[in-house]
Amino acid sequence: MKKKQVKAEKIELKSGERIDDLLIDNLELIQHPDHFCFSLDAVLLANFINPSSGSEVLDLGTGTGIIPHLMQAKYELNKICGIDIQPQMIDMAKRSARYNGLIEELDFLELDLKDALDHFGTETFDYIVSNPPYLKENSGQVSPKESIAIARHELKSKLEDVVKTSNQLVKYGGKVAYVYRIQRLNELMSLMEKYNLTCKRMRMVHSTIDSPADLVLVEAKKGGGTNLEVLPPLFIYDHEGNYTTEINEIYNVEE
Amino acid sequence: MKKKQVKAEKIELKSGERIDDLLIDNLELIQHPDHFCFSLDAVLLANFINPSSGSEVLDLGTGTGIIPHLMQAKYELNKICGIDIQPQMIDMAKRSARYNGLIEELDFLELDLKDALDHFGTETFDYIVSNPPYLKENSGQVSPKESIAIARHELKSKLEDVVKTSNQLVKYGGKVAYVYRIQRLNELMSLMEKYNLTCKRMRMVHSTIDSPADLVLVEAKKGGGTNLEVLPPLFIYDHEGNYTTEINEIYNVEE
Repeated sequence: MKKKQVKAEKIELKSGERIDDLLIDNLELIQHPDHFCFSLDAVLLANFINPSSGSEVLDLGTGTGIIPHLMQAKYELNKICGIDIQPQMIDMAKRSARYNGLIEELDFLELDLKDALDHFGTETFDYIVSNPPYLKENSGQVSPKESIAIARHELKSKLEDVVKTSNQLVKYGGKVAYVYRIQRLNELMSLMEKYNLTCKRMRMVHSTIDSPADLVLVEAKKGGGTNLEVLPPLFIYDHEGNYTTEINEIYNVEE
Repeated sequence: MKKKQVKAEKIELKSGERIDDLLIDNLELIQHPDHFCFSLDAVLLANFINPSSGSEVLDLGTGTGIIPHLMQAKYELNKICGIDIQPQMIDMAKRSARYNGLIEELDFLELDLKDALDHFGTETFDYIVSNPPYLKENSGQVSPKESIAIARHELKSKLEDVVKTSNQLVKYGGKVAYVYRIQRLNELMSLMEKYNLTCKRMRMVHSTIDSPADLVLVEAKKGGGTNLEVLPPLFIYDHEGNYTTEINEIYNVEE
């Protein structure tokens, strides 16, 4: 049985910060509107993944630590580490973990992706997750807020850095999962193949049943066989513009 | 306006052959139960593709000629050629074209994929389609009927031969489309990239809304940009086990 965390009595909020209810296990997360706040993408990724119990997990570019918090609530894992290049994100993630009574389970670390191999050593983790920046450096509108720009655009780390680092840090036979913009699926699949991560499970995310896919969820295995499973599609909204039953369930999971 | 074909008065059926109504433009197709008969896959591919009018088209492994017949009915094309290594398939396809009054529009040729480059010359076609054999030579049950085995298993041509030949025969900027088993999507995408065919449009085909995908429809462009569009999913059956509205529409298109 998973240990239930005991919340710290007092939350340490800094100026401008807010606290958001994660709607699972009574968890709350510190966020700041001037920095990158988590979106549905991270929540979908945390629900899509399939880690074995007792896994050691790493989240590359963890932001406010949303994915480690949700994974800790949903799965029986040994330890979850989240790294991010932005000190203010790691500061928020650490305080959230402390407030949620999860300082033993969750470990947040200010670390550049490029230093991750030196820091952790090769083939350290059973499962690696990431919600990488979706946009190429020179595409779309770059947020004037640097922290948001870094999370959305490939300013500090490119998709290839994320996939390469995943390969270096995941054990042979271990798994890697990403959520990514569908437009760049060619590139993602090509990079996963280049770095010996075989895509084994995939799920398309569509806004509605009649819309093209917006996102793709992928799970790859280091040194896995070739067969791919594409799950039933995930729809966010029904025809009335309300969340579908599945999305409502994802947002209200009770363990 | 597309010319309406005039049917030959007499159909030339050989022993054991039957004639199937294609439910479009009054077209009928000669098939033989001992040989490979077309399935929904070919019909889905013919509906998925998006050729410009006036295109010159090639169908690699055309079988009884289902895809050229359907394409001729649906699109304004210049000429459609279908090749197959099996003489008895080409014989049926030719007689179907004659009976349907399409000998000018459709050209069927007994030709090994490996000889196609010599026969046609490089970069000859605007659009290439194929419903390649899905199964690896040593996987699953091989049909005791040789003709069916060749169409289903990679006995005479492997996926790589199909993709490589597509690249050689399609013009720069031209398009290529396949229907394929979802389990081998990794391999298909990797081969398309290897042969400079960039996947631009993709559609997953699911038996029902709750099932994993069975098939994938892909359209690639020779030398295309990187952005991929994944269309809304295609479902074959509704919850009552009947064809969905979309499948019924595909089977009953009126021009």
